[in-house]
Order: sequence, then C-alpha cells, then structure tokens
Amino acid sequence: MALEKLRKEETLAMRKRLIGQSLRLFYSEDPVKIVRARGQYLFDESGKRYLDCISNVHHVGHCHPRITKAAAAQMELLNTNSRFLHDNIVLYADRLAATLPERLCVFYFVNSGSEANDLALRLSRQYTQHEDVIVIDHAYHGHLMSLIDISPYKFRKLAGQKEWVHVAPLPDTYRGIYQEGHPNPGQAYADTVKDLIEEVHSKGRKVHFNTDPYSFTKICDIQNSHPGGVFVADEVQTGFGRVGNHFWAFQLQGEDFCPDIVTMGKPMGNGHPLACVATTAEIARAFTDNGVEYFNTFGGNPVSCAIGMAVLDVIEEEDLRGNAIRVGAHLKDLLAKLQTRHEIIGDIRGVGLFVGLELVTDKEKKTPATERAAWVVKRLKEEHQICVSTDGPWESVVKFKPPMCFSMEDAELVVQCIDGILTEDAFSDTKPINH
Amino acid sequence: MALEKLRKEETLAMRKRLIGQSLRLFYSEDPVKIVRARGQYLFDESGKRYLDCISNVHHVGHCHPRITKAAAAQMELLNTNSRFLHDNIVLYADRLAATLPERLCVFYFVNSGSEANDLALRLSRQYTQHEDVIVIDHAYHGHLMSLIDISPYKFRKLAGQKEWVHVAPLPDTYRGIYQEGHPNPGQAYADTVKDLIEEVHSKGRKVHFNTDPYSFTKICDIQNSHPGGVFVADEVQTGFGRVGNHFWAFQLQGEDFCPDIVTMGKPMGNGHPLACVATTAEIARAFTDNGVEYFNTFGGNPVSCAIGMAVLDVIEEEDLRGNAIRVGAHLKDLLAKLQTRHEIIGDIRGVGLFVGLELVTDKEKKTPATERAAWVVKRLKEEHQICVSTDGPWESVVKFKPPMCFSMEDAELVVQCIDGILTEDAFSDTKPINH
Repeated sequence: MALEKLRKEETLAMRKRLIGQSLRLFYSEDPVKIVRARGQYLFDESGKRYLDCISNVHHVGHCHPRITKAAAAQMELLNTNSRFLHDNIVLYADRLAATLPERLCVFYFVNSGSEANDLALRLSRQYTQHEDVIVIDHAYHGHLMSLIDISPYKFRKLAGQKEWVHVAPLPDTYRGIYQEGHPNPGQAYADTVKDLIEEVHSKGRKVHFNTDPYSFTKICDIQNSHPGGVFVADEVQTGFGRVGNHFWAFQLQGEDFCPDIVTMGKPMGNGHPLACVATTAEIARAFTDNGVEYFNTFGGNPVSCAIGMAVLDVIEEEDLRGNAIRVGAHLKDLLAKLQTRHEIIGDIRGVGLFVGLELVTDKEKKTPATERAAWVVKRLKEEHQICVSTDGPWESVVKFKPPMCFSMEDAELVVQCIDGILTEDAFSDTKPINH
Repeated sequence: MALEKLRKEETLAMRKRLIGQSLRLFYSEDPVKIVRARGQYLFDESGKRYLDCISNVHHVGHCHPRITKAAAAQMELLNTNSRFLHDNIVLYADRLAATLPERLCVFYFVNSGSEANDLALRLSRQYTQHEDVIVIDHAYHGHLMSLIDISPYKFRKLAGQKEWVHVAPLPDTYRGIYQEGHPNPGQAYADTVKDLIEEVHSKGRKVHFNTDPYSFTKICDIQNSHPGGVFVADEVQTGFGRVGNHFWAFQLQGEDFCPDIVTMGKPMGNGHPLACVATTAEIARAFTDNGVEYFNTFGGNPVSCAIGMAVLDVIEEEDLRGNAIRVGAHLKDLLAKLQTRHEIIGDIRGVGLFVGLELVTDKEKKTPATERAAWVVKRLKEEHQICVSTDGPWESVVKFKPPMCFSMEDAELVVQCIDGILTEDAFSDTKPINH
C-alpha cells in the first residue's frame, strides 16, 4: 500500500472542500499529515518522526500487532450482531467485570463514549424517574444533543443551561474557589454539591451526578448522605489504567466508593469504535422493565469484543499500568524541577500518564498564559517533532496523555525540550505570536 | 482460533447474567449460536448452515476477504483521529460525493446511524433555528435520546410525543389511510404532510422533515412548495444500492428531488461501526458559523474509511446493485405466484433486495396475521435453517433484507420453503402456537 495517495496540498484542498469545517485540524496553520504510526511515534509523509503525547485513544501504542491480529482473525471468521449468541461478548463482559466492584455487573456495548453517556442518562432517568443532573463546571461528556445539555463546556456556547441541569464548581485546588490554603478543600467542594442536591430535593426531585471521577473529592460522603440518586462515573478519558495505581480513576476515591454507572470509551478499542456502559443489576432491571428493546446495531459485535479483549491482554502482559506509574511519576518530578527555574510554570498536576502543566503570566495572580501555552505547543511540534495539546477553561494547560508505552526517555526528552523553549522564549516576548 | 470457547448453555447463562436484558436475542426461546459466516451463510457451533435473509448490515456478504484485507492493511499502518490530515477521509468523501447529487458535497463521519441522525438534527436546527420536526408514523431513527423523541415507534412506548414533533401518516397503500383504490394516493399522502407544514408555519415556525425516503411519495412537490425547511433522508437502512436501480432510495423519487441532508449507516462498513452525514455547503456553513467545534473521536479514522472504500469497490466490482435488481425481482415474482395459492398472503412489496411479505388472517379486512408470521419465522429456522424476521406495526410482515450477494437459488429455496410451511400450516390451525 502506498503510504501517500495524494500530495499534501491536494489532501488539504480536498479536506477543505469535502469535510465539515467544524471538524478542526491540529496545527491548523500548518497541519501535519500522518501516514504511519507505531507505539508512541507518528510518521509524516516525508518519514519525519513525531513523538505522540496526545493519543490517549491509542492506549497500548499505535498499530499494536497483537490488536491488528485479533481484529483480522475475528473479521475473517464472523462479525454479526449481538442478537445472535456469541462467546466474545460474554467473555469480554466477564473480563471487564473482573476490573470493577462486584455490584457493577451488567454491561451494554456501544460504539463511542458519547453513545455510552447518552445511554447512561437514559438508564439513570428510567431508574430515578427524574431528570435533574449535577455536572461539574467545564465538563464535556460528548457530542450528542443530550450530552451538550449536560456539558457546560459546550452548552454555554450553544443552547444554554437547562432548568434541570445543575453545575457544581470545578474542584480545582490551584485556581478554583477553594484552593490549597483552604483547611479542607475536598470537603468544601463536596459541600457545594450537597447544597445543589438539597436544592433539587427541596423541589421533590431526585438527582443524577455525572462527572469525571478523577477530578472529584469526597464523592463517597455525598453518595452515602443522599441515597436514591445515581452516580455516573464518566471514565471515557480516564479508564483502563491511565491513572496507573488503579484500573479506573474512580478507585482513587478509595474502596468505599462505588459508582452506580460507569461509562467507558476512548482507549477501550485502541482506536476501534468501542465503548460500554456498566451498571448494577437494579438499574439494568428498571431499564428492562420498561419493556422497550435496546438494540445497538454494531455494539458488542464479535470483532469489537475481540479487539477489546486484546487491549486488556496487552495492558496486563506489558504491565502498562506499572509503566504509567513509573513514567508518570518521573514526568511529574522532572516538570517539578523545571518549575523551580521557570516563573511561568504555575502548577503541575495529574495522575499516572494524565499530566498537566499550567502556565501563568503572573504567579501571584495565576493569570492564564494562554498565548504562551499555544506557543509551547507550536515550538514543540516545529522544532522537536513532539505533539502535545492544550486544555483547561483558558487553554493554558499543556496536557500529556500519550500512549501508555511512553518511556522514561520520552519523558526526559519532552521536559528537556520544554526547558529549552521556555528559556529561549524569555527573550522573545516582543515577537508577535500567531496561533 | 477455536470456533467455540464456551458450551452453548454456558454462553447463554453468562449472557443472561452479564448483558443488559433490554438487548434481546433472535429466537429467544431457542437462540442460535453463530460462530462463523461467509457470504449469505451463517454457521452454528455444530457446523449447521443457515441461509441469512436478515443481515442487511453485512451488505457485500459476511467476512468478505476484500474488506478484511483492507481493514488489516490499514490497521497495521495507521489508525489515528481526524484532527490529523489523512488521505483516506478525503478520498472516501470524494467517492461518496460521486454517488450523490452535486449539492450534497460536505461530509461528517461518525460511528453509527444513530450518531448520524443526531448530528442531522443538530445541523438542521442550527440552520433553520427552529426545532419542529415532521416524522412518518411508526418510524425508528435510532436509540439515542434525541432520536427516541422523533421515533413514533419508540416514543409511544416511552416519554410520549413532544409538542414540536408532528407525525404524518405512513404512506402505505395496502392498509394506510389512502389505499390502492384511491385516485392519487401519492398526492393524498403528500397533502397530509403539507397540512402539517401549514400548521407549523401558522405558528411562525419552520420545519424539518425526517423520513425514510423509500416509503414516501411526492416529496419533491412538498419541498418546492415550502422552501426554507430542511429535508433529511434517513438512508441508514436503504442506502448503498439495496434498492437496486439506484444507489440511494431517495433517487426513487426522480431526478428533480434532492434532500438537504442524507444520513447513512448500517451497510456502510459491512459490520464495522461506520456512518456518515452528507449535506449542502450552506447547511455546513451555518454549523461552522456557530463557532463550536464538532469532533468525533473515532469518526472518519483511516481504518473506517479504508473499510468504507473497500465496500464501495465490492459493490461495483461484483455488480451487487445489478444482483439486487435481478434477485429482488425474481423473489417478488415467486412470492406473487405464491399469493395466488395462499389466502394468507395479503401483500407483497419492496424494491431491490428489501422485500416484505404481509400475512393477513382475512383478506378483505386485512387483519394482521401476527401469530402466523411468527410461526413462519420459527418454522423457517427450525425446519429449513433460514433466518428471516418480522416487521411492521403488527409484526405481520415477513421481511427479507439479505446480504446483497443473495442468489436466484437462495430466493427460490426461501419461497419453496414458505410454500411448504403455508401449505402444511393450513392443517395446523387448531394447534396452539407458542412464540
């Protein structure tokens, strides 16, 4: 197979003409054309190699031969729908169940994290018979209409906030409403949620929580004090061992905590469209009892499940969680050392191989250094062929979520390059910055 | 790879325990375990062969080697997301554009027909700035929350009809409100839609149409008389040549008609999760102009697009549209002959390889023979290893939507077996029927 079928300019021209422009390109000023990838490396049409710190979806590494082999073998044999009995769907569900608390024992397979979050909403509404939802500020739960309604990151720019949506503050101890100096920020953030719950209850209604569990604190406390609500842990970004010490981010909350629904997606199929909802027998029963069939044409097909199982195999056999612990810690240590030398580094946070480096123009005022963050991304790509992205309400956080095979040497290289850029950048303040 | 990893009873027990029961099994009383498939044939764990008249998704035939090869080759090379520039997404969009009228020239790739219909709703709302939708009675547009709202087939059993949803009667000339005897049923059904439009316009609002274009008549007339609305053709079931004479079912309406949005799904990836929305430059621009990014994690990835192009190749090279015309016509002819001998056959309808056989207990009253249809499905499976399903508001229609490689001999076999069942069944009227 020829690696490039069109000249880059032609690809770009066709893309502008044929593909909806709401779908944006990375590095839109000078987009990268990637034709090949392996492990944590991307290769462009000229053979230039990029270190990939962006592709959390390609969890066990790009084009892992084990995954390709499993997919091709099952594609040759059978890829029918889940209305026929098949071993793969039940064996895969069983393997996922082994990673979760015992009460999360019923599975629904779908094709994307968005489909999973939409189904989670349906399940929890059917169970509670109420529609109120508490979400965390700045959250994004997916691109579907139902999910834009519960994603402050999107609805603020679109249809606005629905009456039944309640937004809790982002539990950010760096620049949130309760910061490091506070005696008990975890409790204080939990109390903001409790207040929202009381408000909903005072109207005689029940509530669902929908959150990225990684960012939250004292969830267990909230859950225990308000039985009857449904807690949805959105593990689409954070699951499958990315946080290192645990398979699921919600497990960072301790053993006492168990969500009522867990949604999973992105890394689950290493790029193959595969996602899932896990829930309790009780919630599943309420959904079945409405008497309406739920059928997802592609969800849980034998090929998707074969790929999902191969991903679990590789995570275990290559000890990728162990790698996330070791390399993630090393990356944070190196960034912490960098912070002592660069005033612009405001905060370093994250767990496992999900790490953020927040840049500020003023350390006291914590003024977001949005332009500088974009500049770092641009320079890392242009000078060093390293792909990173920005995130956060002000796009001031340089984010690392590489394939889980990211190495100690990769971490060292990235930090060394950032060091160089920040050092040199101190002299370029007067240059106009285009991004 | 061992074809069976668990004994059938074990698979069934694990399925009951681990998979949400809202997902129903075919032949729930005695489910079939399929371990292998090829072309139009399914094979169970004992090697027994079933003729497949159900799997419209596996459009070019189960496990087509050409598709597997294309998927594996691209998986070995690269499967990144559509924020990087890649040839496959633009080449595939270009190939799809060649099958459509010129004005449908902008593409969004997603993972399922449901995701496509949800995005179509977002696009048309953003463009019209109104939310009213006209849908056809009994329609099903997908499993997402937004689509249950516009699917009478579902919302009648669930949350009920929203104020902004308007249901037009099913244009069914067999048992609908205007039947064959009517001087101009096509016009009469179109007029019911026009009335709904007038009603919406009288409130100062605009309207979208969302329909399976195959079932509709005189659409062009409606469209011309009410500019400013958006016509969405849901081709998730009917596209990619299934109707034989045309690549898209909406083309049955004649060359004057062009929808504003076309959604596609099921057959597109021959089982791989792949779907798409095609629209006009004007509607795409309105969506881009809201300034909000639309990103679909897996949508339009190089592997999905490679598979999609391979499906188009096989449709062309094996002349599957030609086959759908020839075999579909033969199937309808044979069924028509059967009708002269069996009182229970009320109607035969369909186009290409999408054919329905409606059973009635009383030919004058057109009383749906729901139990008899279920009996035919059961006997075809048990006695002849032929898989068909029922459809329609009363599940009285035996439906044929086989892989497009379905042969003349397959059609003859199916009709011969139905003949036998209906003949024998005339003598079993007093037997209790369990299904």
